[in-house]
Amino acid sequence: MYALKGNIIYAAECGELTVVQNGHIGVDGERVAFVSGTLPKAYQDIEVKDYGDRLIIPGFCDLHTHAPQFENIGLGMNLQLLPWLNQLTFPTEAKYADKAYAKEKYAHVISEFYRFGTTRAVLFTTVHEETAQVLVDMMEKSGICAYIGKVNMDSNCPEFLCEDTEKSLAETRAFFERNKDNQNVKPILTPRFVPTCSREMLKGLGKLAAEYHAPVQSHINENLDEIRWVGELFPEAEHYADVYDRYGLLNDKTLMAHCIHMKPEEIEMLAERGVYAVHCPQSNVNLASGMMPLKPMMEQGVRIGFGSDVSGGHVVSMSEIMVLAMQVSKLRYQQNPEEGFLSFAEAFYIATKGGGSFFGKVGSFEPEYEFDALVIDDASLGKNGESDMIERLSRFVYKGDDRNIVARFIKGREIQPPRFD
Amino acid sequence: MYALKGNIIYAAECGELTVVQNGHIGVDGERVAFVSGTLPKAYQDIEVKDYGDRLIIPGFCDLHTHAPQFENIGLGMNLQLLPWLNQLTFPTEAKYADKAYAKEKYAHVISEFYRFGTTRAVLFTTVHEETAQVLVDMMEKSGICAYIGKVNMDSNCPEFLCEDTEKSLAETRAFFERNKDNQNVKPILTPRFVPTCSREMLKGLGKLAAEYHAPVQSHINENLDEIRWVGELFPEAEHYADVYDRYGLLNDKTLMAHCIHMKPEEIEMLAERGVYAVHCPQSNVNLASGMMPLKPMMEQGVRIGFGSDVSGGHVVSMSEIMVLAMQVSKLRYQQNPEEGFLSFAEAFYIATKGGGSFFGKVGSFEPEYEFDALVIDDASLGKNGESDMIERLSRFVYKGDDRNIVARFIKGREIQPPRFD
Repeated sequence: MYALKGNIIYAAECGELTVVQNGHIGVDGERVAFVSGTLPKAYQDIEVKDYGDRLIIPGFCDLHTHAPQFENIGLGMNLQLLPWLNQLTFPTEAKYADKAYAKEKYAHVISEFYRFGTTRAVLFTTVHEETAQVLVDMMEKSGICAYIGKVNMDSNCPEFLCEDTEKSLAETRAFFERNKDNQNVKPILTPRFVPTCSREMLKGLGKLAAEYHAPVQSHINENLDEIRWVGELFPEAEHYADVYDRYGLLNDKTLMAHCIHMKPEEIEMLAERGVYAVHCPQSNVNLASGMMPLKPMMEQGVRIGFGSDVSGGHVVSMSEIMVLAMQVSKLRYQQNPEEGFLSFAEAFYIATKGGGSFFGKVGSFEPEYEFDALVIDDASLGKNGESDMIERLSRFVYKGDDRNIVARFIKGREIQPPRFD
Repeated sequence: MYALKGNIIYAAECGELTVVQNGHIGVDGERVAFVSGTLPKAYQDIEVKDYGDRLIIPGFCDLHTHAPQFENIGLGMNLQLLPWLNQLTFPTEAKYADKAYAKEKYAHVISEFYRFGTTRAVLFTTVHEETAQVLVDMMEKSGICAYIGKVNMDSNCPEFLCEDTEKSLAETRAFFERNKDNQNVKPILTPRFVPTCSREMLKGLGKLAAEYHAPVQSHINENLDEIRWVGELFPEAEHYADVYDRYGLLNDKTLMAHCIHMKPEEIEMLAERGVYAVHCPQSNVNLASGMMPLKPMMEQGVRIGFGSDVSGGHVVSMSEIMVLAMQVSKLRYQQNPEEGFLSFAEAFYIATKGGGSFFGKVGSFEPEYEFDALVIDDASLGKNGESDMIERLSRFVYKGDDRNIVARFIKGREIQPPRFD
């Protein structure tokens, strides 16, 4: 057992920040034991890591991103979803058939999560089960916790990525069997999106979801052309969400990225099933997809996390994603004042406890939460006499960067820069 | 005379990038002499600074920002324009009556321009003529070129900032007399915005504009409440732009920040007068002001520059401002496909030659242009074999930061990190 001392800030409720200035967080094994101004009597003898005037906040959670696309960050930004997939993304993903190539590129991905203080992540890889396993093994060593999916796609995609349905399902089962008991890095079912999945594929994945009580990740309602296409491919479905639902893929361990052009019935369905809507604002604006109805969906009880969605999104930093989420929300608000807009405290909640809840008791400093934390040194950002702790946190989020993150803890342990041989 | 060698990229036309891989830029005094693949015969003996595989691009131009508000970056981001002014901005600006305070804070401002590769800037200070002069003197020493304005406001503002009209005009004249022959840092007329200026103030500034052929900067059509207020204060005017125009404040050396909620007649008026519309996307989304009709205004021939508008904007980096300008433009496009959206090449043009034209022949590497340049080391950003120079530039703009800028030239001279004693 040990304690960290510093200026502690976390969000136990959406829209509220708890501040303990000059306080202590007690850590027992992997979990938070207490948060307290002074060290409680029973714990007088434990080691205290004193971070002085620095800020201590929960680690960031990224619920949607694509590991093989990190190499494309900043490229193809004049394209929209479907041409962007065909011209840029699919040809890149094909390279991940090669193990040595994947190893080199995935090392960079993990280093970027470390650098930007992302302590939990959920990732797409590619269709290649063998290199998906490479990422699992490397991530497990890094100490960063993750769900990683081998992508399934057997329709409407280039031949060089198109899978045989049976083989894809068998590999997915093998991937689950091999990784289901991992410590930090777990498997997740990953149909790419409806257009690239046959009915047989969706059915098979639905069966696996039921058998393993497996988490699921995919995309929904990102782009108007995509949505029209889904309507043509699955005329029997009521709407996009209904396609996933018919195959048992919407449950309380499901992540659905984007959720931009949502029918009211779809929002209702996501709320009822306990599905997470993963908001990826960088991607949504880069690909001219649109503005997610974030506040209305929060209002209706849909669970929300943020995703970097690299490389539709060009940003790994959850701080920058928080900022753009607030900005996009304010643009919607300017057009629809009745919606209100995302506050700083709400954005911070989503980036920590909101997304963290997908991993269990994660993303907060309440007792029994797994202890993931970042130590922020904001001395270089300029201080005013008047600055309170929330102002300092806000200044870090808007103005700071990875240079201000001076320590990272995951599950109670300080992690070091990842190394790969 | 000397030359720089490297991968040269610049935008001589809006929407087109010129690339000279492994090329030379010849610099004669303050100006570009030539750009060429190999060193021309006549110049075989000049010194060559070899930057190897690095990129060489024009310096960035920031046409609108507020020096005293840098200390507020990241604060007050849940407010909109008018409450934001009253609760946060005006109380901060009052502190700049104090010379020692201003000196300390303005040193940080200049360091930030240096850091982010802003080689030209146009700045608001505060109503305090004495500390506006402090900034002029410090900036002149730094080598960064700027227009700096002492703010005029005599109406509808807190008593502690409200000026006597005659005194304000007299101080403005003195500020012009003192600085009109400066080398790098010139004065600019700076009515804050219509609501804080009486008719007498606007009339007096119009006279100074005519007398000194003076440049002018102000704000227009940022926020709907502001626009309603202007309508109440100046019922005789056709619209917001007409208020400035009646007092002779719209000319081809005028900068008007924001231009969000524009009447068609106002866009026409700006185009006719040769006024620059300064697009400040970070500020416009942070303060929930709205989305500027950027592409339609470009279409109609309005001259365009970018502004950081600190601290409505929280970002000094012109790269990040380019990115958000493209993003906001894509959100407008998603709603109004007929508008098209801002391409990367267009954004880069605006950030360099578009804004630079306010300073004369600035922002390009065409012959006779003043030589402002940044040297970009993008090795840390990851390269693909296929990456061409434009992809590398795009990756720097989207993914890079100040760490990738390894040298800065202004008017032919390499500048060093600013120091102030």
